[in-house]
Amino acid sequence: MKLIIEKNILMEGLNAVSRALSTRNIIPVLNCIKFDLQNNGLYLTATDNDITIQYYIDKKDIKSIEETGCSIIYGKTLLEVIRKLPETDILIENFENNEVSFKTNNSIYNFNCYMVEDYPNISLEEGKNPISISSNKFKEIINKTTFACSLQESNPVLTGVNVKIQGDLFECIATDSYRISKINLKLDEMYIENINIVIPAKNINEFAKIINSDSKMEIHVFSNKVIFKLDNIIFQSSLLNGNYPQLENIFPNEFEYKIKVNLKDFYNTLDRASLLTGSSKKYIIDAEIKDNYLKLKASSAEMGKVEEKISIENLTNNNIYISFSSKYVLESLKMFSSEDIYILLNSGVKPFVLKEVDNDNFIQLVFPIQTN
Amino acid sequence: MKLIIEKNILMEGLNAVSRALSTRNIIPVLNCIKFDLQNNGLYLTATDNDITIQYYIDKKDIKSIEETGCSIIYGKTLLEVIRKLPETDILIENFENNEVSFKTNNSIYNFNCYMVEDYPNISLEEGKNPISISSNKFKEIINKTTFACSLQESNPVLTGVNVKIQGDLFECIATDSYRISKINLKLDEMYIENINIVIPAKNINEFAKIINSDSKMEIHVFSNKVIFKLDNIIFQSSLLNGNYPQLENIFPNEFEYKIKVNLKDFYNTLDRASLLTGSSKKYIIDAEIKDNYLKLKASSAEMGKVEEKISIENLTNNNIYISFSSKYVLESLKMFSSEDIYILLNSGVKPFVLKEVDNDNFIQLVFPIQTN
Repeated sequence: MKLIIEKNILMEGLNAVSRALSTRNIIPVLNCIKFDLQNNGLYLTATDNDITIQYYIDKKDIKSIEETGCSIIYGKTLLEVIRKLPETDILIENFENNEVSFKTNNSIYNFNCYMVEDYPNISLEEGKNPISISSNKFKEIINKTTFACSLQESNPVLTGVNVKIQGDLFECIATDSYRISKINLKLDEMYIENINIVIPAKNINEFAKIINSDSKMEIHVFSNKVIFKLDNIIFQSSLLNGNYPQLENIFPNEFEYKIKVNLKDFYNTLDRASLLTGSSKKYIIDAEIKDNYLKLKASSAEMGKVEEKISIENLTNNNIYISFSSKYVLESLKMFSSEDIYILLNSGVKPFVLKEVDNDNFIQLVFPIQTN
Repeated sequence: MKLIIEKNILMEGLNAVSRALSTRNIIPVLNCIKFDLQNNGLYLTATDNDITIQYYIDKKDIKSIEETGCSIIYGKTLLEVIRKLPETDILIENFENNEVSFKTNNSIYNFNCYMVEDYPNISLEEGKNPISISSNKFKEIINKTTFACSLQESNPVLTGVNVKIQGDLFECIATDSYRISKINLKLDEMYIENINIVIPAKNINEFAKIINSDSKMEIHVFSNKVIFKLDNIIFQSSLLNGNYPQLENIFPNEFEYKIKVNLKDFYNTLDRASLLTGSSKKYIIDAEIKDNYLKLKASSAEMGKVEEKISIENLTNNNIYISFSSKYVLESLKMFSSEDIYILLNSGVKPFVLKEVDNDNFIQLVFPIQTN
């Protein structure tokens, strides 16, 4: 392998694949980045055996390709060295003693390499009927659902997001059994095959971090993995096995209570009041909707107590008491961006719904806490 | 105690005293802030028994003082509640059941209080001959020395900075026995009494963080403590016992080798090269001054090796080899702000000096590493 490449172009590729890089993997070669220089360009690959990222730098973006070849380089140090180099051309060359050198005007870095044969052979072939979607929309869907996934490995399937495609309807849902976040999107095309997969939240979150421009991306679904293709990046993730719970019927269609509240007001007040929910980790808030006010109360035996009130529009003119965990409601509210939101309830013991005033495609449901 | 005060004015005081606030002190009352409302204003105090901070809010900055009195309030929660309140007037009132309430238009926070009698009685009296100094200068002196203090409790006196005053000469020195940082300042006045104290670095750093404007401050020295007075803040710290080492004679007066190098170039190159010093935690860099270049080499059996070179002005035209820890040199370089710096040496086995081109009052000395 011998090539000359600009630092910034190489760095962009290294940054993208670094999200699949293990740093303390007990299999040393998984701490590495694979450089594979072919006649048409340079392929950078990193994998932790759960996610794999490949970044392709076309030959037109490489100053010169003098000899094709392959090197497996310890990723963390390489990334830091290249990041700290000034903007410059780098001559990269590997040698028979299994060293690879990165040379600029004033510096030579020689890295000991791992054996190419030891690097896992990962197939990144394409599927037959990829789904086409806007990358920014997909990023938004990921961000607005994964936060609701479970962190507990006791029910592994809940640590992932459930992605379903039926015709041109794309639905993404996540829950940790205390709250649910659900978002729908209409795709530009109809797809014949129904899709119903569960993608690990931590993997799909890594992919979301790579998305930084709006372009069309492709989703290729396989029986045991999913591949996202975006510009010159291929991102592969494993899937979670197991049946994802049917959550559709939990969302009520009608509500006896409906209030409209300013999002910022509600968030700030709830955030403040929850400081006095004590150290129980349950963050219990007692709420009362009364006339045109929402009152929030919290207390802790050791610290003290609080009462807050917020103006609301009480659209059904009914009064109700309900208790909930401020943690879940605050996390939900963070996902909204409209000025006002609706809070929709049926009783003090049934789950309630939060949604933006003008958006029926993004719905959050929170289970109340029984305090008696 | 009963008063009305603007949120922002109270917050500024709480922020200042919070730096002395313990959060997990086993003595619960040390996790508290003392509110002491007198006819002339409100005194806020926090202490961890090692440092004490008192902040005074004059009656002219208080909307109304209705009843003097005292309350001891758990600090962490109070700070978060007040920080999260909107800009508003707060009515603060304590009750006979040992609760104190913070009331605004839409909210009431009631905090359980601690007993006033349990709060330590700390005397913050003034000394006889305070030293007057610019707070910004003092902050600079703190920042440019404390980083060189030892973190090891094995030699406690080295965990502090040595502050000496003789006549109008103010000198501050810090070392962890691997490097020394020394800064001098000429005071506006002569002081008759010589001062030689050691202030714990972690304490004086907390004080430096409070300084955010340039004004005159006072240093009051006692046998076992020091008090800093700045605007409406009194900051008290314990002193370290023990004899601080005499370091003056370690600084050479003459040098056989003198080079001038661009600060940014040197920092960036050394920072990059030190990535290949391996995992030994010694960060050994082999340097060679040869003609008009400084060459830096590092290697690690596992990772590989590096060679970097930087243009210099070789003012003595001598060539020399020296090995040092990049960690200490990088930390020193961070403290400089001039475009170029001098590196001054006598041999490869003697300590070398780093200083800014136009500043003889701030000198850093680093011990080399013997590699053979």
